[in-house]
Amino acid sequence: MSTGDDDNHGDPLQQQPEEEDGGGYGDVAVGGGLFSVPGYEWADVAALGPDVAGRAVRVRGAAHAVRAVGRRVAFLVLRQGSSTVQCVVGGGGGGGGGDAGVARFAAGLSRESVVDVAGVVSLPREPVRGTTQQEVEIQVKKLYCISKATPNLPISVDDAARSEEDVVKAKAAGEQLVHVGQDKRLDFRVIDLRTPANQAIFRVQCEIENIFRQVLLSEGFVGIHTPKLIGGSSEGGAAVFKLDYNGQPACLAQSPQLHKQMAICGGFERVFEVGPVFRAEDSNTHRHLCEFVGLDMEMAIKDHYSEVCDVVDRLFVAMFDHLNKNCAKELEVINRQYPFEPLKETDRSTTS
Amino acid sequence: MSTGDDDNHGDPLQQQPEEEDGGGYGDVAVGGGLFSVPGYEWADVAALGPDVAGRAVRVRGAAHAVRAVGRRVAFLVLRQGSSTVQCVVGGGGGGGGGDAGVARFAAGLSRESVVDVAGVVSLPREPVRGTTQQEVEIQVKKLYCISKATPNLPISVDDAARSEEDVVKAKAAGEQLVHVGQDKRLDFRVIDLRTPANQAIFRVQCEIENIFRQVLLSEGFVGIHTPKLIGGSSEGGAAVFKLDYNGQPACLAQSPQLHKQMAICGGFERVFEVGPVFRAEDSNTHRHLCEFVGLDMEMAIKDHYSEVCDVVDRLFVAMFDHLNKNCAKELEVINRQYPFEPLKETDRSTTS
Repeated sequence: MSTGDDDNHGDPLQQQPEEEDGGGYGDVAVGGGLFSVPGYEWADVAALGPDVAGRAVRVRGAAHAVRAVGRRVAFLVLRQGSSTVQCVVGGGGGGGGGDAGVARFAAGLSRESVVDVAGVVSLPREPVRGTTQQEVEIQVKKLYCISKATPNLPISVDDAARSEEDVVKAKAAGEQLVHVGQDKRLDFRVIDLRTPANQAIFRVQCEIENIFRQVLLSEGFVGIHTPKLIGGSSEGGAAVFKLDYNGQPACLAQSPQLHKQMAICGGFERVFEVGPVFRAEDSNTHRHLCEFVGLDMEMAIKDHYSEVCDVVDRLFVAMFDHLNKNCAKELEVINRQYPFEPLKETDRSTTS
Repeated sequence: MSTGDDDNHGDPLQQQPEEEDGGGYGDVAVGGGLFSVPGYEWADVAALGPDVAGRAVRVRGAAHAVRAVGRRVAFLVLRQGSSTVQCVVGGGGGGGGGDAGVARFAAGLSRESVVDVAGVVSLPREPVRGTTQQEVEIQVKKLYCISKATPNLPISVDDAARSEEDVVKAKAAGEQLVHVGQDKRLDFRVIDLRTPANQAIFRVQCEIENIFRQVLLSEGFVGIHTPKLIGGSSEGGAAVFKLDYNGQPACLAQSPQLHKQMAICGGFERVFEVGPVFRAEDSNTHRHLCEFVGLDMEMAIKDHYSEVCDVVDRLFVAMFDHLNKNCAKELEVINRQYPFEPLKETDRSTTS
C-alpha cells in the first residue's frame, strides 16, 4: 500500500519518524510512522462506539470525505471496510505544530488516500450525520498519510455506491447524478471494491462458503479439490475451454462431476467441493458465466434419493438462517444499493 | 453405486425386496433392499465398539476379505473408509433360508463389492485379528450385495496399501510381494483411493483447509475466490498455460497474487484463498506440479512486516497442533504406508 512518495524508507525498526518536529502529521511510509506514539492502540472503525469513549486509539482507513471548517479545524471521515467515523482535526487536540497546520494538511488530503489517525474517542453532542459510527468521533492527535491517492480519481466511491433507483429519482427531480456503468467499474475495480455494497457482498460470499462447509462437515462430508485440467470435457457439448498441455489436448473442467463420483466409488461416501467451474459459453447475459465458483456435493445413497433432498434442505435452511442472523448488517448495506426481497425466515412449523 | 445388474429397478418406495423368501440375502439395487428390516439402524463401522454390543445395526461397506469356514459359516471383513469389522455369516444367525445358503453367498462375494449387512454387534472371545474394530464382530442376519465388483480386479487394495519397505523386507526374506507402481495406481484410481492411507490423506487435507480457514477467519481475514482465467500471465516467465478465450488470448492464473493485492487495495485488509494454481512446468519431478491447491493469504501491514510472520507463526502452530490432536489416527495410518517423522509438538516455552 506504500506509494513510495516520501523518503522514509529503510529498516523500519531502525527508523524514527522524521515528521515528529512537524507536529504529529505528514506523509509517511508504512513502518516509518507511529512508533513513537505510545498509548494508542489499533482499533477497527466498526468497533468504535460509546463504550470506548475516552480511549486513545489508532485507526487506519481511507479518507472518505474531507471538509475544512474555518482555518484551524477540519473534519475527516475515515472509512475502513464499510464502516465510517468522523475525525475532528485541529479542534484543540493537535500537536505542537499548531492546529492550522494539521487542519490544512487534513483538508488537503486527496480522497481515498490511506490515512493513519491517532486520537481519543469522544461523544459528539448530537449524532454525526453521514457516518456509520454516528455516536462517536475521534479527536485527532496525530495524522499521517500512508498512501496518497491521485487527486482526480476516475470514479468516486460515492458515485459507485449509488443505486440505480437514486439516479433515476434524482433525474425525475431535475438533478443529474453520476451513474457509474459496469465497464467503468470493472476498469477501476479496486475503487469499485471499496463501496459498502461490494465490501458486504464479499463478506456474505465468504459466510456462505463457511456455513456450506460447516453443515456438510457436520453431516459427515469430506472436502475435496478435484482436477481442473482434464483430458476431455467433463460434460459433453461444445462449451468447453481447450488448451495445450505439453503437446497433448486438455480441457478445463466444466464441473467436478466425474471426480466427485470417483471419490464416492473410492469409498468417501460423502464429498463436497468449493472451487472454480469453467464454461466456454459465448453468451453475453447475466446468467452465463465463463467462470464461477461452484458449491458442489455428492453423496452415496443408502436407501432412497430423498436422503439427498434432506441434506440439501437442512443445508439451505442453515445457510439462510445463518445469513439472516450473522450478516444482517451486510444484507442491509447490499439492499441499499441493490434492492432485493428479504430472505424469509423459515417457518419451522411447516417443516418439522 | 448401483451397477444395474439386477432387476430391482423402479420407484424404490413402491418396491418390496424380492429376495425376502430367499432368506435375507442376495443381490439388490440401492433402494430395493432393506425396507422390510425394521429395528436395524444405520451405523458407521468406525463407531462399532464394545459400547454398542447387542445393538442391531445396518452397515454398508466394501467386501474387504471373505473366508469360508466349513459349509455353513463364512467370515466377511467389511470395510468403510479406513475402518474394518468382521461379520460372521451363517453362524446361527441366518434367516429361514438356512445357513449354508447365506454362507455360500458370502463366500462367493467378489472383493470390493459393496455390501449391506444387517446384524447384531457381539463381543468375540478374543480380539479379531486383521480388523480395525477388533473388539467386536457382527452376527449377520441379512446380507445384500448392492454393487458387484468384477471378480478379477486389476489391483487389489491390500497390494496398493503395502509400503515399499514391506515389499523390500519380504524380498530380502525370499518372499515376492506385489508392488503397485504409481502409473497403475493412477490408472485405477478409484481402487487406489480405497487404501487406508489414501482415505486418511484426503481427510487430513480437508482438516488442513478447515484449520487454515478457521485460524485466518478468527484473525479478521475474508475468504475470497479470484479469477483463474486471466488476460496475461500472473507471474512473468514462460510456465503459463495459454488458451483461446472466444478469440482472445487468455492465461490460467499461476497465482492469485494480483487479485489478492487488488482485494487489499480494495479495502479488505486481510484476505485468503484456497484454490487451484496452474503452472505449465515441463518437469517430471515430485516437486513440480502443473496444478495444485494453493493456500494463499495476503494482508495489509500496519507497522511492520513482522506482523505477517506472527500470523503465519500462529497459523502453522495451530495447524500442526490440530493435526496431532484431531488426526492422530489418520497420521498413524499414513505413517504405516508412507513413513514420516512425527509432527513435533511445539515447545511453547521457547515461543512464548
